[in-house]
Amino acid sequence: MARTYLDWNATAPLSDAARCAMLDAYLLPGNASSVHAEGRAARAGLDRARRQVAALVGADPQHVTFTSGATEAANLVLTPDYRMGRSLLAIGHLYVSAIEHPAVREGGRFAVHQVSEIAVTSKGVVDLSALEKALAEHDAAKGLPMVAVMLVNNETGVIQPVADVAKLVHARGGLLVVDAVQAAGRIALDIQALDADFLILSSHKIGGPKGVGALVARGEVMMPKPLIRGGGQEKGHRSGTENFPGILGFGAAAERMAADLDSRNAGIAELRAILEAGMAAAAPDVIIHGADVARVANTTFFTLPGLKSETGQIAFDLEGVALSAGSACSSGKVGQSHVLAAMGCDPGLGALRISLGPDTTREDMTKALVAFERIAGRRRLPGQAA
Amino acid sequence: MARTYLDWNATAPLSDAARCAMLDAYLLPGNASSVHAEGRAARAGLDRARRQVAALVGADPQHVTFTSGATEAANLVLTPDYRMGRSLLAIGHLYVSAIEHPAVREGGRFAVHQVSEIAVTSKGVVDLSALEKALAEHDAAKGLPMVAVMLVNNETGVIQPVADVAKLVHARGGLLVVDAVQAAGRIALDIQALDADFLILSSHKIGGPKGVGALVARGEVMMPKPLIRGGGQEKGHRSGTENFPGILGFGAAAERMAADLDSRNAGIAELRAILEAGMAAAAPDVIIHGADVARVANTTFFTLPGLKSETGQIAFDLEGVALSAGSACSSGKVGQSHVLAAMGCDPGLGALRISLGPDTTREDMTKALVAFERIAGRRRLPGQAA
Repeated sequence: MARTYLDWNATAPLSDAARCAMLDAYLLPGNASSVHAEGRAARAGLDRARRQVAALVGADPQHVTFTSGATEAANLVLTPDYRMGRSLLAIGHLYVSAIEHPAVREGGRFAVHQVSEIAVTSKGVVDLSALEKALAEHDAAKGLPMVAVMLVNNETGVIQPVADVAKLVHARGGLLVVDAVQAAGRIALDIQALDADFLILSSHKIGGPKGVGALVARGEVMMPKPLIRGGGQEKGHRSGTENFPGILGFGAAAERMAADLDSRNAGIAELRAILEAGMAAAAPDVIIHGADVARVANTTFFTLPGLKSETGQIAFDLEGVALSAGSACSSGKVGQSHVLAAMGCDPGLGALRISLGPDTTREDMTKALVAFERIAGRRRLPGQAA
Repeated sequence: MARTYLDWNATAPLSDAARCAMLDAYLLPGNASSVHAEGRAARAGLDRARRQVAALVGADPQHVTFTSGATEAANLVLTPDYRMGRSLLAIGHLYVSAIEHPAVREGGRFAVHQVSEIAVTSKGVVDLSALEKALAEHDAAKGLPMVAVMLVNNETGVIQPVADVAKLVHARGGLLVVDAVQAAGRIALDIQALDADFLILSSHKIGGPKGVGALVARGEVMMPKPLIRGGGQEKGHRSGTENFPGILGFGAAAERMAADLDSRNAGIAELRAILEAGMAAAAPDVIIHGADVARVANTTFFTLPGLKSETGQIAFDLEGVALSAGSACSSGKVGQSHVLAAMGCDPGLGALRISLGPDTTREDMTKALVAFERIAGRRRLPGQAA
């Protein structure tokens, strides 16, 4: 059976651009730290990829630190120990929105008592007044405040008011970390315009390979204590032999996603409109979360009353449609959504996520709707007898 | 000009086995944490790779934790904070041999004052009596001792007496961490026979892709505090979306290196014997470091009096031969060798490393010797006028 892959927020299939860049890289044997011609060729490739990734987010290539993925980047940046030039700088407390990815919610190298959660509204948007209150109560004697708010939520696709968050954070002299994993390639992204101090990026969410990500800094003066120490690669910010083909694939994917953003989004938005209209027609009681606030064009996070997440996910899988129950963040776990819970919904309700990508077709939408109608038709509605 | 690549200890060219495994993996879009068919296929691939890597070192596949490389694995395992089942277990001090790779020498998450160096002999072998003395003086009140000794040194190729080290460490109730990066695929490797508590492995040194490595534990009861936290992948020991194609490439490379070890080594040893005999004939004053102790078959670390490392490396590069001045551990840095210094040699002497691999040919040796003779012929010998 031909499969319909609609789980792009979990991972995007490897793009041709990335695949070609990696195949080229495989022919080069060098270690980018070696001085010989092979090593220098690898180094030149890394530099190009650094420019490509920087260009996607309006940053200086010098401020891109490649990591093994967004989770590592989060663990690198979320630490109480910073350096400002040659002096130590202490971060006293970390404030994370209640809908952050587990990689951020776990708080990196902060101790449990150094991390607080900031509430979100019922629409799934970070509550700016709650953040303002928390920052007003911050104990500056312990160090600066650090705030982590994602730009686009991975489950709902809701765009967060990061520029407003930045104003609040910087008014208190704090640092703002923005998980831009689900935003990259989906909305225009500029680290200066966002006024973020750090951005977290993932390669495999934009059509690059898994196992690569980046921490992008606005400047270079203030940097976290390294998480992985050793040979001093990445200017000492991240040691370990550079993942040369992986980084080249990430660079190629970033370059592709930086181009044609508006036309790509228009196509995806049109497909999603067809999908959501079809869903509402087939099951008028369907709830589409975040539908009346700003969302990225590719995500539909929905609840079909009477259908549990686990059951729904398996049912769609059997119909040949790959989608997910919230995030695919841990090994095969189908838990309750912390995002739904944070929005004040009963997470027991269950919700499913359909996420589209640049290769999604109209036929994919038709197949998804056929599956949706079948599954919606056979669910047991609340109060209905068996 | 056709190049002669003799820097396999820095990085091995990607093997066909790994390349094929990765190309297959690229066709699968799934995230191994997803429940749908695509996700389950990715999960099955990871499980196979885990068995392949475990088999290379005689371990239980359940005890393999994939990381982004050996440097990350070192930073994961080298920490004062352990768990023994559900209880916390403190490691009081870390003892590292003076010839460890920077990824180990930096001491991971130990504070500077918690790390001591163990001397090596002039032959480049860890000094067992120095280790015994250090362990006898260990302050058990602060926690258990941890010892890190590599199995094969990356610069000299000298094999370390790890089983003897294990006896000393375990007599004191300590933990033994063995960096087996340069040993894997070069000598028979069995975590039980070595009596090591943890092994560190790297994919790109055995013909797998860069950006992947593993921490292999002898058991599962005693494990380090995670370095990278988030979605809880790798049983919570290492979070982040698994590098699916990379891990599959690592698995395929491990399977290939586990087979035909003796015949592969015999071929490589024969080539190295030709090389070293030719070098001695062309320049009788050449010093081959570690030549009279147990070495792996592929490495020649030599000093040619009157030739500095930097000059020598560039000269060979211009002759079309890629080799290195010690390890390729940090960005383009051609520093003095800490290994030579630890052996009591004047590191200002300079030394170069030739390292062979399974694809090295007799013609490569001829080319290397032609370059060697030219370079040896035009060096300025000590005391000689300009």
